Amino acid sequence: MTDRTTVRRLPEKQVRDRPVLDAVLDAGRVAHVAVRDEGGQPYVVPVAYARDGDTVLFHGSTASRLFRGLADGAPTCLTVTLLDGLVAARSVFESSMHYRSAMVLGTAQALTGDDKLRALQQVSEHLMPGRWADARQPNRKELAATLVLSLPLDEWSVKVSDSPPDDAAEDLDLPVWAGVLPLREVAGAPVPAPDLRGAPPLPAYVGEWAGP
Amino acid sequence: MTDRTTVRRLPEKQVRDRPVLDAVLDAGRVAHVAVRDEGGQPYVVPVAYARDGDTVLFHGSTASRLFRGLADGAPTCLTVTLLDGLVAARSVFESSMHYRSAMVLGTAQALTGDDKLRALQQVSEHLMPGRWADARQPNRKELAATLVLSLPLDEWSVKVSDSPPDDAAEDLDLPVWAGVLPLREVAGAPVPAPDLRGAPPLPAYVGEWAGP
Repeated sequence: MTDRTTVRRLPEKQVRDRPVLDAVLDAGRVAHVAVRDEGGQPYVVPVAYARDGDTVLFHGSTASRLFRGLADGAPTCLTVTLLDGLVAARSVFESSMHYRSAMVLGTAQALTGDDKLRALQQVSEHLMPGRWADARQPNRKELAATLVLSLPLDEWSVKVSDSPPDDAAEDLDLPVWAGVLPLREVAGAPVPAPDLRGAPPLPAYVGEWAGP
Repeated sequence: MTDRTTVRRLPEKQVRDRPVLDAVLDAGRVAHVAVRDEGGQPYVVPVAYARDGDTVLFHGSTASRLFRGLADGAPTCLTVTLLDGLVAARSVFESSMHYRSAMVLGTAQALTGDDKLRALQQVSEHLMPGRWADARQPNRKELAATLVLSLPLDEWSVKVSDSPPDDAAEDLDLPVWAGVLPLREVAGAPVPAPDLRGAPPLPAYVGEWAGP
């Protein structure tokens, strides 16, 4: 926690527990990463990622100018936001969302060799646990086309908004419903690839997760 | 569409239709916005937003240094990503996600007066249609504490990934299931505020949306 990651707005929502950071990063699937081009224009790019101990791992293409910039040491920010609900307060001003958001600042490092392969495994297993062992693992050419980056969990902040509407006392008698509409992500029925050959069984790690 | 928003990676996923951009922006609830501090450190901040014709509207606090930087004309990027599913290909390399992602580049402008109030209404109605008319609308003090920004839809790109696994021919005979696990967001049962007074009815715009 540094001055740059001290939450100035709504500081009561800031959480300083490292386990909360880990839980948010472990619950998300998509992170948004900032990268700048030479002209100073920022870009916000969605990436697949995984937490591995004290780092966040993510990957991009070695052909991507922006990802090469990150590998060259450009300062970055990786944010994971989970939307948990909509907060309908009596006032528009207090209406907001339930969310968990983790922000990591720093400089990423490109991984090579075994570290790179292991990081790809971590990202794969984070997205779909069990898949790595079943799928064909990356070959030399695929590895060469992939830039795998590691961002240390040194400078970070987490905000968690999970409280009921916090209306001002003078608004409590307004004749309007107030509360929270929870939102969550669910899986539907798996859709087999149209070109599936033979009749490979649906893996348990997909089937147990899938919904109707 | 400019050189900066021409997708270089996976260009086959790029969509150039403005209606697709609008649909992605209209379907999302949280955008991630890039802001830089004076030292060049980028931050990626989640915001509530709404599309209004040819602009994206979003808000922050007037006390936020980073949002004031945006109002002062710092170049920014606003990205909305919707995760629609996990793609389990035969190879790890081709495994990915179904997603829709819209990226808008440009410079934001702070709104004032009626434009500002109307923008807040747009954001409120985007998140929970019908709520604005029921809730107490912002007063002078609340308006003064809110920075409302408008970003024109001039420079943008959209990527849509919605295809089945695209495995190489030599991987098609691998004895492993391949396909897509769809993901979607659902609402749960509304949670009334613990300090609700009287018995205001659950509004139809919440009830019709809510799940079990």
